[in-house]
Amino acid sequence: MTQAPLRLGIAGLGTVGVGTLRIVNRHAELLAARAGRPIEITAVSARNRDKDRGVSIQPFAWEDDPVALARRDDLDVFVELMGGADGPAKAATEAALSAGKDVVTANKAMLAINGQSLAELAEENGRVIRFEAAVAGGIPVIKALTEGLAGNQVTRVMGVMNGTCNYILTRMENEGLSYDEVFDAANQLGFLEADPTLDVGGIDAGHKLALLATIAFGTKVAFSDMVLEGIERITIEDIEQAADMGFRIKLLGVAQMTPRGLEQRMQPCLVPAASPLGQLEGATNMTVLEGDAVGQIVLRGAGAGEGPTASAVMGDVMDIARGFRTPTFGRPASGLADSVPAQTAIPAPYYLRMSLVDEPGALAKIATVLGEQGISIDRMHQYGHRQDSAPVLFVTHKTDRASIDASLAKMGDTGVIASAPVAIRIEDV
Amino acid sequence: MTQAPLRLGIAGLGTVGVGTLRIVNRHAELLAARAGRPIEITAVSARNRDKDRGVSIQPFAWEDDPVALARRDDLDVFVELMGGADGPAKAATEAALSAGKDVVTANKAMLAINGQSLAELAEENGRVIRFEAAVAGGIPVIKALTEGLAGNQVTRVMGVMNGTCNYILTRMENEGLSYDEVFDAANQLGFLEADPTLDVGGIDAGHKLALLATIAFGTKVAFSDMVLEGIERITIEDIEQAADMGFRIKLLGVAQMTPRGLEQRMQPCLVPAASPLGQLEGATNMTVLEGDAVGQIVLRGAGAGEGPTASAVMGDVMDIARGFRTPTFGRPASGLADSVPAQTAIPAPYYLRMSLVDEPGALAKIATVLGEQGISIDRMHQYGHRQDSAPVLFVTHKTDRASIDASLAKMGDTGVIASAPVAIRIEDV
Repeated sequence: MTQAPLRLGIAGLGTVGVGTLRIVNRHAELLAARAGRPIEITAVSARNRDKDRGVSIQPFAWEDDPVALARRDDLDVFVELMGGADGPAKAATEAALSAGKDVVTANKAMLAINGQSLAELAEENGRVIRFEAAVAGGIPVIKALTEGLAGNQVTRVMGVMNGTCNYILTRMENEGLSYDEVFDAANQLGFLEADPTLDVGGIDAGHKLALLATIAFGTKVAFSDMVLEGIERITIEDIEQAADMGFRIKLLGVAQMTPRGLEQRMQPCLVPAASPLGQLEGATNMTVLEGDAVGQIVLRGAGAGEGPTASAVMGDVMDIARGFRTPTFGRPASGLADSVPAQTAIPAPYYLRMSLVDEPGALAKIATVLGEQGISIDRMHQYGHRQDSAPVLFVTHKTDRASIDASLAKMGDTGVIASAPVAIRIEDV
Repeated sequence: MTQAPLRLGIAGLGTVGVGTLRIVNRHAELLAARAGRPIEITAVSARNRDKDRGVSIQPFAWEDDPVALARRDDLDVFVELMGGADGPAKAATEAALSAGKDVVTANKAMLAINGQSLAELAEENGRVIRFEAAVAGGIPVIKALTEGLAGNQVTRVMGVMNGTCNYILTRMENEGLSYDEVFDAANQLGFLEADPTLDVGGIDAGHKLALLATIAFGTKVAFSDMVLEGIERITIEDIEQAADMGFRIKLLGVAQMTPRGLEQRMQPCLVPAASPLGQLEGATNMTVLEGDAVGQIVLRGAGAGEGPTASAVMGDVMDIARGFRTPTFGRPASGLADSVPAQTAIPAPYYLRMSLVDEPGALAKIATVLGEQGISIDRMHQYGHRQDSAPVLFVTHKTDRASIDASLAKMGDTGVIASAPVAIRIEDV
């Protein structure tokens, strides 16, 4: 081994940081054989130096300040595992790039909000930012999209990329439990972020989708343009009705370039139960990449956890050790186009559920509203008649979200709606 | 664009070659933006210059001899799409490497047989051989394993990697047809290789598995050590019996490092119908990668065809254009260990089906043979009694193949076997 070691500085020693330490310790010889040079950790930084992490940090230099760590002369790669869109993570990343270090990060929020400026800073300094661990945990989807599918015009990217949401939806279905019951259980198990909205509101998964869309379509990261809808309003009734029709409800991200601009949605959707996305159970993640040459590629794996996320961090480290210099989003940041958000999503069938007051002509009034908005009905199903109301379910033919929203507003004026209608898109996956 | 173009010479203008031409023509601007330099085709070679391929080869220089193409001064990458383990493909690949060209190939047979010597030749000349298109078509599995999972000790690699076999088995199950009926239909549709044994005998898929095993375990390619068993003996009866128990039969490749050495098998297996592998229908491919950090990653996509395979070729071309220099099998060829084949596979439950002559005590004799070999029975099922014989099905507890083979031999001596027993491994996927 004649080559110089690749020297890492790791900021953030939570689950993923500790996982990364463990891999470097455990596989020193294997990593060196594969990279052609040793991988070494020089220095670390975290909030608490003395916490027992189950792994010794004695061999490494310590910095209280991640910015100071990022600027150390004795490291080649700054590994940012602190999290947070701004604050110390961003300051240290900027310091590292300016000091001529490459950056490996698991920080989806930072890149979804500040990705363009950071990518530009990296290029000004001839450095790379790699972020495989930021999207779908251990699944090498950034690599597959940026490199493996580099010969394709990407046509669509989809993903179930928040394990907590998929765990909640799967458990509701399997055990017939309400959203609130499973949410509380998940919270007690420590599955949820400190701010649960990041998970169940779709924000965390939306950050990931925005990064995939940038690579796929060559547009600047545009998280603020994303249609975001969480799973909080999904009921066990919706899940069961969907199942009866051969569907499952997933928090599904979809990004595609349309003639009207870039469509980015992270929202609950009905998908066929027999499709790979429909079959996905528990906290597992799945991404679906579609290209004009390759057709559809499906990637499945653990979306979080010490081992899988550290595996992704180390994949990036190994690329850098091997001398790969991939631009942050697969092409120079200066060449990324401004993203034009699509005003209206590609039409799709919709699932509509509502309760009608129990009076003659109620159903006719609703059907009339739908007809007036140009929405035609594929299937209608009245079920489980209750005391004063009748639950009704419609599956529409293809229509757009604007027509659905307009019809929902008009339904409110009919006086026959007993409970607020639910509308969920049926995605053709 | 100030960088010099990457110049390709393509040998072989069948489906994949034409697909590669089409991508380079169609996406010139996109490829240049992503690679940071133009991708150009300089020269081509094929058996017949005048064949109508639906795409013009007028813009490119022509060579009758692929070796002459490989040596041309005006190309950087030799793209080998001729096929064949030896002969012109190998000669031209060697010529290209010796002349200082990188090589991109879709040729699994050539690498499974001659991979070690070619990888050594590449390194002597400071060149790379990339072969994403050789394994599982458009799925970027070589990249995922070599690069994305480079931080893992790989524990197991599995795959359904021959689309024709999976098509035959799926269609048998879905339509209740015999192997011969579906084989003939597949042959008429042009799905089979000129020598169908390459497909249905498991050889083609075995070549692919041997390449994955080399990357995964750092051992020299050892295709000749692989346990190979085709799908020719699978009956619709086996498929239906397996389905009744919640299994599907797949031509499944499994490679794993055991304390006794490297286990490599490509053979029909029972897998749970609800597993990702069990759910795989038709000609689609699936690879499963397992690592000590990442857990299980599943990759699914088209395993063949113009677009998917050309997508993989172009992924490799783009890597080379971006300056990535991955060693052929993920580490220097000189560092690959000699492979020690495992003498006995890791124990597994087995599915055993046979017909017994209709006489008292027949079943007891078979059960005795199994017991004498130390094989314990998990389930036994006698079904569909026929004129002079009784079909019987056993599911054993975990045992090894040697015990199964010994018991099958002894059953022949009992005089109660009416038709040759079938033994299929049940894989824990």
